[in-house]
Amino acid sequence: MGGDQPYGMIEDGAIAVEGSHIVWVGLQSEVPAAYADWQRVDFGDRLITPGLIDAHTHVVFGGNRAVEFEMRLNGATYEEIARAGGGILSTVNGTRAATEDELLASALPRVDALLAEGVSCIEVKSGYGLDTETELRMLRAARRIAQERPVRVKTSFLGAHATPPEYAGRDDAYIDEVCIPTLRAAHAEGLVDAVDGFCEGIAFDPTQIERVFVAAQELGLPVKLHAEQLSNLGGAKLAAAYGALSADHIEYLDADGVAAMATAGTVAVLLPGAFYTLRETQIPPVEMLRQQNVPMALATDCNPGSSPLTSLLLTMNMGCTLFRMTPEEALAGVTRVAARALGLDNTGMIAPGLSADLAVWDISHPAELSYRIGFNPLHKRIFGGEE
Amino acid sequence: MGGDQPYGMIEDGAIAVEGSHIVWVGLQSEVPAAYADWQRVDFGDRLITPGLIDAHTHVVFGGNRAVEFEMRLNGATYEEIARAGGGILSTVNGTRAATEDELLASALPRVDALLAEGVSCIEVKSGYGLDTETELRMLRAARRIAQERPVRVKTSFLGAHATPPEYAGRDDAYIDEVCIPTLRAAHAEGLVDAVDGFCEGIAFDPTQIERVFVAAQELGLPVKLHAEQLSNLGGAKLAAAYGALSADHIEYLDADGVAAMATAGTVAVLLPGAFYTLRETQIPPVEMLRQQNVPMALATDCNPGSSPLTSLLLTMNMGCTLFRMTPEEALAGVTRVAARALGLDNTGMIAPGLSADLAVWDISHPAELSYRIGFNPLHKRIFGGEE
Ligand SMILES: [Zn+2]
Ligand SMILES: [Zn+2]
Repeated sequence: MGGDQPYGMIEDGAIAVEGSHIVWVGLQSEVPAAYADWQRVDFGDRLITPGLIDAHTHVVFGGNRAVEFEMRLNGATYEEIARAGGGILSTVNGTRAATEDELLASALPRVDALLAEGVSCIEVKSGYGLDTETELRMLRAARRIAQERPVRVKTSFLGAHATPPEYAGRDDAYIDEVCIPTLRAAHAEGLVDAVDGFCEGIAFDPTQIERVFVAAQELGLPVKLHAEQLSNLGGAKLAAAYGALSADHIEYLDADGVAAMATAGTVAVLLPGAFYTLRETQIPPVEMLRQQNVPMALATDCNPGSSPLTSLLLTMNMGCTLFRMTPEEALAGVTRVAARALGLDNTGMIAPGLSADLAVWDISHPAELSYRIGFNPLHKRIFGGEE
Repeated sequence: MGGDQPYGMIEDGAIAVEGSHIVWVGLQSEVPAAYADWQRVDFGDRLITPGLIDAHTHVVFGGNRAVEFEMRLNGATYEEIARAGGGILSTVNGTRAATEDELLASALPRVDALLAEGVSCIEVKSGYGLDTETELRMLRAARRIAQERPVRVKTSFLGAHATPPEYAGRDDAYIDEVCIPTLRAAHAEGLVDAVDGFCEGIAFDPTQIERVFVAAQELGLPVKLHAEQLSNLGGAKLAAAYGALSADHIEYLDADGVAAMATAGTVAVLLPGAFYTLRETQIPPVEMLRQQNVPMALATDCNPGSSPLTSLLLTMNMGCTLFRMTPEEALAGVTRVAARALGLDNTGMIAPGLSADLAVWDISHPAELSYRIGFNPLHKRIFGGEE
């Protein structure tokens, strides 16, 4: 994608790939003579986009919450569900009980569903272990996804996701005694690409999150934050002050927060799957983000509680339908902007020097990717130049 | 499915199939001796459900409205879209311009997306021709789907979908001069299984719909109706008075209408894809339907304008998430109840004498079919006993 057309589209375009990288992009009629004898693959009238990027997932977890979903629809109260072992605690227990191999094995079908729609890069968070052992195990399982499948994986340490039952009522102690030491251990093992947290009334307050951010800064790791999902605690502004890659969810973000993100260059990662599942009504401030040039990414937030979603195409439709993003914004949000939310500069666009991560689609107009619901027009996925 | 368990589930069950039909269902430990030497297929711990049934679709149409979807999100007004040839008229023009082969070819990828999720029966409506030639062509294309793919197709004549431009302002004349004569011609050609209409302020009023129903009755054809989607005109009650198989959409249905449907045995076909796409807020009266024992089906309403949706599994999730149906109701709504909405008594359940239309799933609990979003756990589809 490049040029001045909507979507940066090139009609009758050609892409030259050498090894795993793109070396040239332009019109078929202008392919340099030097490439004349290169092997050619003709994709006909199909559309080629960058490989898609899911910039916010929790695909590694143990347990299954389908029965809890059913209990709730059968009229069970939150208390009854909690007594039956439901809620995030059920996933923490399921994750703690799972081996690294089991965590990997249960994540792969979710990853495969994403890959089948042209995804070439996924972010994966820890945060269902909430003890050192299990957080490290989750991150090791996440790293192994990239060995088992042709996909790029970026990990985020999310120790500050919730307070585990053994620290109930002692959030500060959990942050200082478990979360931060575990972050250091995970970093020492090379398991952490970014540091995340959940800043919310039901999770951690800004002063607790800030201690985690300071620890991240000391380790030279970038930060991001689940912020302003259910209320406005100023999380996005705090994240921006630490130069965060992204602030995610942000339904309740205000003008102040938008301005802080714009100044810091922090990406807004919108998660319509959780908005849909939780039947939220407060929509993220898309128009304000647009006006302030805060780039918007879209991600599945794939997780067993609030977004059991494994379709990035459906996420694009939800971004348009529920949040009134344009199809062009939606496509940028799962490619170029998603790469930026992960601090990646080697993928997410079709440009010389970048990895040849491509998706070839059986459609004629890129708006179809957002328009259709529950339909996968992928013809071929190319990762690092390999089909 | 049978017995007293939730979902009528049988643990460690077995199904005996002879030719295209089911001859016995029960516990593996109780398979009759007579079947002892029959060929066996072991599906392990997988779940088997009836093949899914999509009881309301418009999968046959011409044209593409992705660009209109994009225009709207880019801020175009309805007038601007109409001037650019958008709206239902764009689909009417696209359908009139398409040959029967083209209509079939463009429908098949949509059908294939449904079949890939275990669907074994789809209903298909006419209604984008609005002239005799094109309505007949749509129905012929619909019938041919069942020759091209292993699927059961039930057709509904929907001449009373909209008034075509050449009859603008003359709705009554369109009904009498085109719609009803076309119905008779289509029936004479064996193309019609049921007669449908769209009763709404933006479509036809109850007196116009009733003339179509009378014509259907004379031909011995069952009726159904798009009713109470955007307002309450008493369409469902009218349909019930004609013994309708179903009243569909029914967001604005009142207690009176529910009672009429209950008395007539008319099925409620709920279409959350259109509710989602149109960002409706008025939810169908699910609790009242439940209390009055009106059976609820769920269908995609697959159409290029208000529901470009080709996933019946996602429809089940929407039925639960948006309409608060239970996963058990959702599964019944795309199997047993959907069959009833189409007047079918030979499919939709796993029972002796019925067609061996089955879906085998890689899941352990049936609630997972509704719980997951954008994930297809189908292991195998069996249609009329054939894999
Ligand atoms: Zn998240
Ligand atoms: Zn319809």
